[in-house]
Amino acid sequence: MAESLVLHEDPRSGNCYKIKLTAALLGLPLQTKQYDIMAGETRTPDFLANINPNGRIPVLQIGQRFLPESNAACWYLAEGSALIPHDRFARADVLRWMFFEQYNHEPNIATLRFWLHFVGEANLGEERRSQLMAKRIAGEEALRVMDDHLAARGWFVGDEASLADIALYAYTHVCEAGGFRLRDYPQVCAWLDRMAALPGYVAMD
Amino acid sequence: MAESLVLHEDPRSGNCYKIKLTAALLGLPLQTKQYDIMAGETRTPDFLANINPNGRIPVLQIGQRFLPESNAACWYLAEGSALIPHDRFARADVLRWMFFEQYNHEPNIATLRFWLHFVGEANLGEERRSQLMAKRIAGEEALRVMDDHLAARGWFVGDEASLADIALYAYTHVCEAGGFRLRDYPQVCAWLDRMAALPGYVAMD
Repeated sequence: MAESLVLHEDPRSGNCYKIKLTAALLGLPLQTKQYDIMAGETRTPDFLANINPNGRIPVLQIGQRFLPESNAACWYLAEGSALIPHDRFARADVLRWMFFEQYNHEPNIATLRFWLHFVGEANLGEERRSQLMAKRIAGEEALRVMDDHLAARGWFVGDEASLADIALYAYTHVCEAGGFRLRDYPQVCAWLDRMAALPGYVAMD
Repeated sequence: MAESLVLHEDPRSGNCYKIKLTAALLGLPLQTKQYDIMAGETRTPDFLANINPNGRIPVLQIGQRFLPESNAACWYLAEGSALIPHDRFARADVLRWMFFEQYNHEPNIATLRFWLHFVGEANLGEERRSQLMAKRIAGEEALRVMDDHLAARGWFVGDEASLADIALYAYTHVCEAGGFRLRDYPQVCAWLDRMAALPGYVAMD
């Protein structure tokens, strides 16, 4: 890749880790610039004007262009590699799991980790507290869908690791920080081990 | 496309409409099979076993294969067409807006439409009721990001309509059913008009 790659990130974020794991598996050099989301560093006027008007990390900077959204950034990095299948249906199926991750998985599993592990249950306001049970149930449902899917296969799409696995791995492997029990999902546990054994794998900070 | 295309859908769903609009703009024939999500027709054992283990529509059936997730289905249909840009960054930028749609837009703007227009505010339980204000604020923020982005351009990515526009159009153009005011977002209104003028455009049912 000719242009320099800079990841604007908070190292506690699984969404940021997805991009670092993708780059590591592909052997791509990636610089990082760190922000503290809990201190509002992604909501400053400068960040909103120049990095991401949506006020969120991660953002992948490619030369002088900025690409928000973790899964879009992974897609940019992985095009042309084996992390995106060549077959048309399989390629769309990778996106299917990446959209599942952002809609059914991350808002429940990542959010409970953020609320319970970083914010702390005692500090949650009433509106968040009232959602704890619904997010617990929806997160367990997402893990169950994953566990059932993996019962008959080693990877989410096709015969090797793809961006679908990377997207789902990021918050699944740290889900116990949000109160989920990985031992309830044995197929997921075996898949987590396969992911950590991939050549080039890097751990989350 | 050699294989038959069947959309498993609920016509009230903007997520289903995205796929119908994509097919229409591309001139692709698309059969439909309808389900009533409010009657639980996508949670039956048969549906979970054979159509989508996640219990949701839309699902695009391609021959005998099933592809859940609206934006993944749109991607499948549009590959090789002008709805997905050829440039690598622009292609990832289309996905950026599609992930923004599923994370920041749909869970607020589509959910308030569903709760207020189809379920009815009087029928909402306490957990949903406590989220109304947060979803209103987050939905308005998503519309503001869109309006600001469109101030300097006619389409979300590049110089012509792409899947980014289709994904964001579906629930934006009916957002007033969820209590949002389109007149607060004049750039969005002008873009909605451009969308409705596209050759092959079809309206939502």
